[in-house]
Amino acid sequence: MLIPIAQADALVHAAMMRSGYDAAEARIIADHVMGCELRGVSFGGLSRALSLIDRTRLSPRRPTVVRRETPISALIDGQDQNGYLVAHQAVMLGIAKAKTSGVGLIGAYDTWYTGMYAHYLEIAAKEGVVAMAMGSSAPRVAPHGGREGRFGTNPIGFAFPSADQPIILDIATSVVPIAEVVLAGRTGRAIPDDVAFDPAGEPTTDPAAALAGALRVWGGHKGSGLAIAVQLMGMLAGGGAMPADYRDCGFFFMAMRPDLFADPADYAARVSAYAEAVRAARPLDPASPVRMPFDRSARTRAQIMARGTIDVPDAIVEELERVRDVR
Amino acid sequence: MLIPIAQADALVHAAMMRSGYDAAEARIIADHVMGCELRGVSFGGLSRALSLIDRTRLSPRRPTVVRRETPISALIDGQDQNGYLVAHQAVMLGIAKAKTSGVGLIGAYDTWYTGMYAHYLEIAAKEGVVAMAMGSSAPRVAPHGGREGRFGTNPIGFAFPSADQPIILDIATSVVPIAEVVLAGRTGRAIPDDVAFDPAGEPTTDPAAALAGALRVWGGHKGSGLAIAVQLMGMLAGGGAMPADYRDCGFFFMAMRPDLFADPADYAARVSAYAEAVRAARPLDPASPVRMPFDRSARTRAQIMARGTIDVPDAIVEELERVRDVR
Repeated sequence: MLIPIAQADALVHAAMMRSGYDAAEARIIADHVMGCELRGVSFGGLSRALSLIDRTRLSPRRPTVVRRETPISALIDGQDQNGYLVAHQAVMLGIAKAKTSGVGLIGAYDTWYTGMYAHYLEIAAKEGVVAMAMGSSAPRVAPHGGREGRFGTNPIGFAFPSADQPIILDIATSVVPIAEVVLAGRTGRAIPDDVAFDPAGEPTTDPAAALAGALRVWGGHKGSGLAIAVQLMGMLAGGGAMPADYRDCGFFFMAMRPDLFADPADYAARVSAYAEAVRAARPLDPASPVRMPFDRSARTRAQIMARGTIDVPDAIVEELERVRDVR
Repeated sequence: MLIPIAQADALVHAAMMRSGYDAAEARIIADHVMGCELRGVSFGGLSRALSLIDRTRLSPRRPTVVRRETPISALIDGQDQNGYLVAHQAVMLGIAKAKTSGVGLIGAYDTWYTGMYAHYLEIAAKEGVVAMAMGSSAPRVAPHGGREGRFGTNPIGFAFPSADQPIILDIATSVVPIAEVVLAGRTGRAIPDDVAFDPAGEPTTDPAAALAGALRVWGGHKGSGLAIAVQLMGMLAGGGAMPADYRDCGFFFMAMRPDLFADPADYAARVSAYAEAVRAARPLDPASPVRMPFDRSARTRAQIMARGTIDVPDAIVEELERVRDVR
């Protein structure tokens, strides 16, 4: 159904409060969930809200604990809490430390589902810092040359403030996202024959077999190396080497004040000018101009906000309403 | 010819001193050049030494200048000096700052040819820090969806100390290295038809046309986004947005003391155990076990050191001897 943006946001917020989050926590989660919907990343939207609620039931609510701290760093024990909150705490702390100390390096562990890194990175860019985020998770992706999982879909991303639209990169290191395989399974579709292995290590088009086996890594040996580096950064942050699903993820965030190196306004102007130069590169297909990272997300968001509604399967809205209305 | 390792090293060192470097600078350069030869990266070896000497003649020797500095950061004005020296200075300063302040973030600009990042990253890992290095350069690589250059081959790399062999990742973001295209041109070979564009933006197999045009980016839109992020980090470090060849490169280096987040010995042991688990992943081809980043380099180096000689074209040795013996 088409549901007005404000109504969807209120529904997620209310369902999260019913699930044990306080109003401020529910706001952080709803902003993130709606941020995904507004970019057209629907698997991170209202359907993900239901997954978050399910997973929330498995852990008692406990406050996170900062285990190590310096003026330039912190290590957050996530206490098996929702990664949308743990990573948000890490990001806000990293930005604050960057503002006071020039840089903030934050590790977080014992958490799950840290969500869409572009969401955090956009917050950082708006605050005027250059940022990097990485996250490790369960071994659902096979290394290059292998056929069984050794790391997660391990996102890595960067944020650069500019004089107009910030440059936000957010890439995962599997060929396809796990959520896309889950969605294919739910809708009875096959997956392409070159994106996953079954539990015996053979190529498969069956979503269930792929989820029980391993996804293929993106980018050959280079992408595999990058995924391993992300897993090792997650482990530095306290994440498990090969954790169980939706447990023991590691999250690493760095924010830097650009004036360590440059005049911030001058740098922002140079970033914007460079972005324009990239967009102006002669395209392979004249109908498809070269895009900068985040261009597509920004355009989709503008279109959805102009429309005023998001399109969500009825069953998902109804389930969230059930959660909200439970007595 | 086969030339003993110590003799090749002495030849490079002497040729560099004849080219205007002092003994300590020539040692830094020779270590780097020989480090490439020992890993089998021959295009970064003695033949590159000749390119360095040629390029050295274009810039007067001047001391580099630290333009901005804090306890956790520095910005180095490379004064158009050899990148092998400027990046080395950045790396050593970054490691020193990490040891005293927890982290060292170093930018360097107005430099050229920063070489093989695995060389710097291995130094960092030996010093017990976790490190990251990135470098921007002239627009020789086309963005995804484009057919003209907008960024360099833009290496990005990471170093992780372990209880045994460190984990060193060093990846470039073009499909093929520029040096490989140069080498194909020198030896009259064609390049594959899907790695480069000619100046008109059409695919080409002609090395000269590719060098006048642009290389293709690795990894589709994700690899292209990563290359753009590296260019923007190089620009933060003061590098040009789209510099001329072998000028105005940007170099960014970060070193972190692992005890900001973890017990270093425990982390090193976990890294080693994880590396073993990756190597033990069921391989696609039973004859090709899964490798960790750096495994191949380490094995090649052990083989070459056991042999005691490197294999270098006669003409290159003779030219270096001419440089060394000039009166």
